[in-house]
Amino acid sequence: MAYHLLQRDPQGADRLAQAIVEARERIGHCQLCNTFSERDLCELCAGPDRDRRLLAVVETPADLLRIEQTHTFRGLYFVLLGKLSPLDGVGPRQLALEQLRQRVEGSEIEEVILATGFSVEGEATAQYIGVWLAHRGIRLSRIARGLPVGGELEFTDSGTLAQALVDRRELGR
Amino acid sequence: MAYHLLQRDPQGADRLAQAIVEARERIGHCQLCNTFSERDLCELCAGPDRDRRLLAVVETPADLLRIEQTHTFRGLYFVLLGKLSPLDGVGPRQLALEQLRQRVEGSEIEEVILATGFSVEGEATAQYIGVWLAHRGIRLSRIARGLPVGGELEFTDSGTLAQALVDRRELGR
Repeated sequence: MAYHLLQRDPQGADRLAQAIVEARERIGHCQLCNTFSERDLCELCAGPDRDRRLLAVVETPADLLRIEQTHTFRGLYFVLLGKLSPLDGVGPRQLALEQLRQRVEGSEIEEVILATGFSVEGEATAQYIGVWLAHRGIRLSRIARGLPVGGELEFTDSGTLAQALVDRRELGR
Repeated sequence: MAYHLLQRDPQGADRLAQAIVEARERIGHCQLCNTFSERDLCELCAGPDRDRRLLAVVETPADLLRIEQTHTFRGLYFVLLGKLSPLDGVGPRQLALEQLRQRVEGSEIEEVILATGFSVEGEATAQYIGVWLAHRGIRLSRIARGLPVGGELEFTDSGTLAQALVDRRELGR
């Protein structure tokens, strides 16, 4: 891309540089959910048609977008902008945990869904937040681990299959 | 393999043929769990160290082996030897459902885990057996659907992510 811009499209390079500067200047974080936003409140948090009793905690704005693309979640989000990773120097203080606590306390939120990934860091982050938000009268839940849609036992790795058995869901209730 | 045997190892071809005939003659089905076995009862069903209150229903002997390889399941199995698939001419009568009912009724079994896959046919099979075994005083459960171990939201397909949200697990209970 760099070679193309320099060789064939010098004006394009100027426009790209300008766009990056503008984005850098204009895009901040939503005051409620912490995702990228040009306004104080992002479209989701400002909108009228979401279920404000449900809050999904995700690692990144990209994860928020990924869940939105499923068209099945009607609640709101909170973006941590990272996950606990001591090796990379990211501890609890580097994440927006204090902001999450303020977001949850005294709000209409009835359930916090820990929707970080199932990497070691994502699991540790969910665990940490789970302990940290416990005993506040809010339901805590974790997205499910198990077989993917369309998945067959024969082609599932042992760890995932073991979890799918442990986390089995009771039927008929 | 055929070319190798015919060109280089004619005695090997004879031994292979003999082994197949012997397997065909000697291997039948376990009377309890329906998996392949040389005796009336397979090693698992005959063994003393399994939890006889727990029964996992799987599609094939290969699926049984797959779960055994996780080293986490201590219950027994029932092998359907197939899954409902009307397009392939497999209806409820082609599966060992009557044998499953007999296996469950009047036994020590307290929970039946529907451990068929999440293909359309595997889901239909689990659904059918769930309805069929309902109201018999036995707990019914289904292996979990969701993100794989190590999985990140960003790389998860929409269907699986939607299910992981719907099937979220409540914490702290």
